[in-house]
Amino acid sequence: MARTVRLRLTLAYLGTRFCGWQVQPEARTVQGCLEEVVSRMMGRQVRVQGASRTDAGVHALGQVAHFDIPEEKAALPWQRALNAQLPRDVSVLEVRRASQAFHSRFSPSRKTYSYTLWVEEHYVLPQRRPLVWPLRPLDLEAMRESAAILQGEHDFAAFQNVGTPVRDTVRTIYEIRFEQGLHPCEVRILFTGNGFLKQMVRNMVGALVCAGKNLFPPGHVGTLLEGRDRSQVPETAPAQGLCLERIEYGPAHDGPEDECTPTD
Amino acid sequence: MARTVRLRLTLAYLGTRFCGWQVQPEARTVQGCLEEVVSRMMGRQVRVQGASRTDAGVHALGQVAHFDIPEEKAALPWQRALNAQLPRDVSVLEVRRASQAFHSRFSPSRKTYSYTLWVEEHYVLPQRRPLVWPLRPLDLEAMRESAAILQGEHDFAAFQNVGTPVRDTVRTIYEIRFEQGLHPCEVRILFTGNGFLKQMVRNMVGALVCAGKNLFPPGHVGTLLEGRDRSQVPETAPAQGLCLERIEYGPAHDGPEDECTPTD
Repeated sequence: MARTVRLRLTLAYLGTRFCGWQVQPEARTVQGCLEEVVSRMMGRQVRVQGASRTDAGVHALGQVAHFDIPEEKAALPWQRALNAQLPRDVSVLEVRRASQAFHSRFSPSRKTYSYTLWVEEHYVLPQRRPLVWPLRPLDLEAMRESAAILQGEHDFAAFQNVGTPVRDTVRTIYEIRFEQGLHPCEVRILFTGNGFLKQMVRNMVGALVCAGKNLFPPGHVGTLLEGRDRSQVPETAPAQGLCLERIEYGPAHDGPEDECTPTD
Repeated sequence: MARTVRLRLTLAYLGTRFCGWQVQPEARTVQGCLEEVVSRMMGRQVRVQGASRTDAGVHALGQVAHFDIPEEKAALPWQRALNAQLPRDVSVLEVRRASQAFHSRFSPSRKTYSYTLWVEEHYVLPQRRPLVWPLRPLDLEAMRESAAILQGEHDFAAFQNVGTPVRDTVRTIYEIRFEQGLHPCEVRILFTGNGFLKQMVRNMVGALVCAGKNLFPPGHVGTLLEGRDRSQVPETAPAQGLCLERIEYGPAHDGPEDECTPTD
């Protein structure tokens, strides 16, 4: 059998018009668009694996995906060819060769998501609307205190929505950081962890926003965690504020591998 | 006759889906959307005057407009009412009361436009694509030198596209400034002047980009200015990189007037 080469992609997309990452019949998905282009180029069905199955409406600046191609196709100008054929709401930021041991989804990794709040009640800039959750000004100190409780290793069962069953609901959040967003009316919250349950970031944001509206007594987020009861946690924050920022695989996979990106 | 009050609005819009500012039959325009909402609220046709007749596809962060209403309507929560009824790609950032001497278009003013270039050739971020002109890396030093030639009072006939005839084609550019855009792959050029001819900013950008591609000998932009011949100037830069940033009216009109904006 012919030798194959594994390619690793970094992708950005605007989630607005996608029904999420994962291929679904009759739905426009990022994985579906990618597989269509790669399969057409290779003349056979190619499966593209992604690191995170982002939901409908969720954006990405650093999704990672991989697929295998016959070795003789490795020298194609992959980035240029993919970007020329993909729709305008998805872009390939980088293509590199990966070892066969690399798997975008199962290789150990740290993931960072951002969630952007618009905290000016009188208007939302149309230029920023597709990427933010519009709210009133919030008590950021109360939000930071609640976020500190969520950091660390916990059972996040209370923050998981119904989806594919998972073996366990313990995850570690290394950091929850607040910063100003691109516009002065924006607050950006960055969540870095070893993995996230279904809609866990959006459920944490829903709870942090309740804290920011001073609807929770101090420490209430800890009570929610301990209760492990999804029905006690506020509504899931809307998809359009969420963005998959970055996936890190550690030194085994993040070293300087063969670049396939053409320099032109 | 009933006394009237003049309201002055500051507006932001995403130009992508608008056929520009100015009302046109059968076309979706910003002025048209505003007049429809205000006229519906007042129960009669109301004309809304805008400071700049931005072209199709051009964005705004600081367009200024005004209209007159009967005095008894001045206390309405104007900003909230307008934003609740306007489409999501236009927002009212501020409403204030203006004197009858104020006219958004004819009161003396300084205007600032920005033009955003995306200068990474391998990809464009989908999140930024609606707001940038995608190009390769450019010689910014050559662009700055050409921009310096355009600053000051000149006859800009060579940089004017065909449109409504104007009395004269002399304008003053106070400043052309380069800065990094919101994303590290972006260069933002800010043009401040006492007024701009039709598509003058986009024609200047077209010329600056040619300089940045090293297609012009040094000083060539000065030759273009002096020639006063539109056919010698490169193609007009695309609309989506342009944004009307700010309009200043000077102390007579920028003082602290009655705010009509409800604090809620």
